[in-house]
Amino acid sequence: MNCEVIAVGTELLLGQIVDTNSTWIGEQLALSGIDCYYQVKVGDNFERMRVVLAEALARSDSVIVCGGLGPTQDDITREVVAEVAGVSLERCPDLVESLSQVFASRDRKMPENNLRQADIPAGAEVMPVHPGTASGFKVEISGKAVYVVPGVPWEMQMMISDYVLDDLRKCAGSTAVIQSRTLRTWGDSESGLSEKLHDEIQRLDETRECTLAFLASGIEGLQIRLTAKASSTLAAAHILDIEEQIVRRIIGDHIVFGVDDETMESAVLAELRRRGLTLALAESLTGGLIGVRISAVAGASDVFRGGLVSYANEAKFKLLRVPRGPVISEAAVMAMAHGAARLLDTDCAIAVTGVAGPDPVEGCDQGTVWMATLVAGVVEAHRAKLPFDRERIRQITTISVLNNLRKRLLRLPTNSA
Amino acid sequence: MNCEVIAVGTELLLGQIVDTNSTWIGEQLALSGIDCYYQVKVGDNFERMRVVLAEALARSDSVIVCGGLGPTQDDITREVVAEVAGVSLERCPDLVESLSQVFASRDRKMPENNLRQADIPAGAEVMPVHPGTASGFKVEISGKAVYVVPGVPWEMQMMISDYVLDDLRKCAGSTAVIQSRTLRTWGDSESGLSEKLHDEIQRLDETRECTLAFLASGIEGLQIRLTAKASSTLAAAHILDIEEQIVRRIIGDHIVFGVDDETMESAVLAELRRRGLTLALAESLTGGLIGVRISAVAGASDVFRGGLVSYANEAKFKLLRVPRGPVISEAAVMAMAHGAARLLDTDCAIAVTGVAGPDPVEGCDQGTVWMATLVAGVVEAHRAKLPFDRERIRQITTISVLNNLRKRLLRLPTNSA
Repeated sequence: MNCEVIAVGTELLLGQIVDTNSTWIGEQLALSGIDCYYQVKVGDNFERMRVVLAEALARSDSVIVCGGLGPTQDDITREVVAEVAGVSLERCPDLVESLSQVFASRDRKMPENNLRQADIPAGAEVMPVHPGTASGFKVEISGKAVYVVPGVPWEMQMMISDYVLDDLRKCAGSTAVIQSRTLRTWGDSESGLSEKLHDEIQRLDETRECTLAFLASGIEGLQIRLTAKASSTLAAAHILDIEEQIVRRIIGDHIVFGVDDETMESAVLAELRRRGLTLALAESLTGGLIGVRISAVAGASDVFRGGLVSYANEAKFKLLRVPRGPVISEAAVMAMAHGAARLLDTDCAIAVTGVAGPDPVEGCDQGTVWMATLVAGVVEAHRAKLPFDRERIRQITTISVLNNLRKRLLRLPTNSA
Repeated sequence: MNCEVIAVGTELLLGQIVDTNSTWIGEQLALSGIDCYYQVKVGDNFERMRVVLAEALARSDSVIVCGGLGPTQDDITREVVAEVAGVSLERCPDLVESLSQVFASRDRKMPENNLRQADIPAGAEVMPVHPGTASGFKVEISGKAVYVVPGVPWEMQMMISDYVLDDLRKCAGSTAVIQSRTLRTWGDSESGLSEKLHDEIQRLDETRECTLAFLASGIEGLQIRLTAKASSTLAAAHILDIEEQIVRRIIGDHIVFGVDDETMESAVLAELRRRGLTLALAESLTGGLIGVRISAVAGASDVFRGGLVSYANEAKFKLLRVPRGPVISEAAVMAMAHGAARLLDTDCAIAVTGVAGPDPVEGCDQGTVWMATLVAGVVEAHRAKLPFDRERIRQITTISVLNNLRKRLLRLPTNSA
């Protein structure tokens, strides 16, 4: 079973909007075991949309058309699909009713234009979920399923997740459940991980219990995605549980900082919270980035007290009591960590200083970074040389030092506060 | 003249990478006056790539193929293009030579595989720029130009900018120069701006001197893009100069915080630097975000001294001398601004406190924000109610308060330090 994706919208071709909808749909199809061989972007133009849909039907088993279901005159996906299906548009009384309700609940009069959103090709099946004013629908053309969904990302995602994927898998005659789990790692390279996992990947290729794929996620490290196919959700979860343990044992448990949506900062906060510890920061080259990531997590305030962005040297000397002298140094970063913990009265602290560049500072090249973590009164500092540009140096420093703290916390007993 | 874009790569269809290359190319084509009606993504598969390229040649005037020029066995764009052109691949001695030099300069032995990157379809023209190991080339098929460029974004962008766009415009018989300028605005809505500019847009529609388009850029405000077509770069720049003045007069000069790549933070830093002023921050709900944006600008350290991320209330009371009492208040935010300037010994300060959510604090709902700016000893504070989620509240607060400072600085004489 394969499925082609057509994204509709002139703004996509003009480069005003990045087409992340197709990317998301492609990922969901892959996770559902459905192949996607072609993805096409086309503008809001009747003839060109017609050509693209006809081509897709000629070469693919099914098609998802995304966008062009709004209320304006530009939105002509309904008309094009009806034309290719060889049927007329019909106004659906249920949809008129639900549209009226949407506007009534917002205390607004429904513009006449919006009624167009109640028109669907004769014989089409309206999707059960329509969180916005646009309704998705499915129509069969020459025995092939065409799914039409709006371009608003969250509306589209709800319809694909709640209806399209299941329906596609049903059409494919598949009753299996597919589940994925992503292990997020930091500290090893893709070639290092794939070398370590080489034998296990070969074993999985033979047993077909589960698949294992690497995904680079830039400054957020490398992800290992496990995907299992089974007869039930429970059975799939069981396979993933076992495989996760095998992978963790092979690559080293400490390499995995999170599962699925867990981030490095949420992992650090969880470890601090579990031990009843509080955190302060002293940031120089990162300019506040560590604080931003930590405070982005809702509920961070029970653990995170605050920080000092000591960008100018005077701020380091005066506020953090860094000894006068080189500030790109072990002595400086250790004093910064102590200073932050003292000023904010915390159990733990993180400090970073270094050269974001482009120009060298104190004879140190761009990318020279000192990082320190303070846990239970003891500061550990180390130096890194990051061969990146200004922004990446700041990002990599942030995640590296958070990971250093995470690893030190893991070594503590759970109720050591 | 129109041009179709084909992006090659199975990882694009699997949703592992967002296809921003096509988006960027689409924007550049539009800016060059070349229509783009179709963009297609296809995997690393010989037959499907062949079909897609043949279709593109049947319906479009020219084609850009992006990706699949690497050294591995998956990279088969060269072979597919040669097949569709009906010619064989030939090893180009000049490319072998330049590949050898690249590896020699890196002190590495060239793997045999990389020699494939010196193969191009017979009769193809190698593009003059090849910053990486992949060479772009142009080949004519049935009288239509096919441009083949690598998928590595910066390599691709260099080839498109330095060669493809000029060549396309030459093929289109266009000798006109097209130039754009983007005015970045903050503080007015799209409907507000388009109402104010309504008459001017109509005038431009008639005179055709220049076009004017709105681009939403999310939390970075609204952009107004002016595009002029003229016989020379100088003439186009002159038209843009005049139109920029007209637009600034209509919408209000202070609404425009930057031109083209200028950001809100670079504008603020420039105004501070011009007046010899220094800046400190006291951030609560933004958690360091203002500092991150300011310190992201290279050379910020001559103006930006540092900041305090006073996330816990105790940090506000103790370090910033905020009076004990409600911290989501005018009194608190004003004390924070004074405290930051005092601790870091600066002329100016920014302070923010508020409720990022999701839970209310001190009886204030999510999105309640107090912002303050301190200039020449005087603090101005104001309250906002931002109906957004946690992350957007933080982002909008950051740019709003930077804009408040910018507007206050503009009212100062230039050498008031």
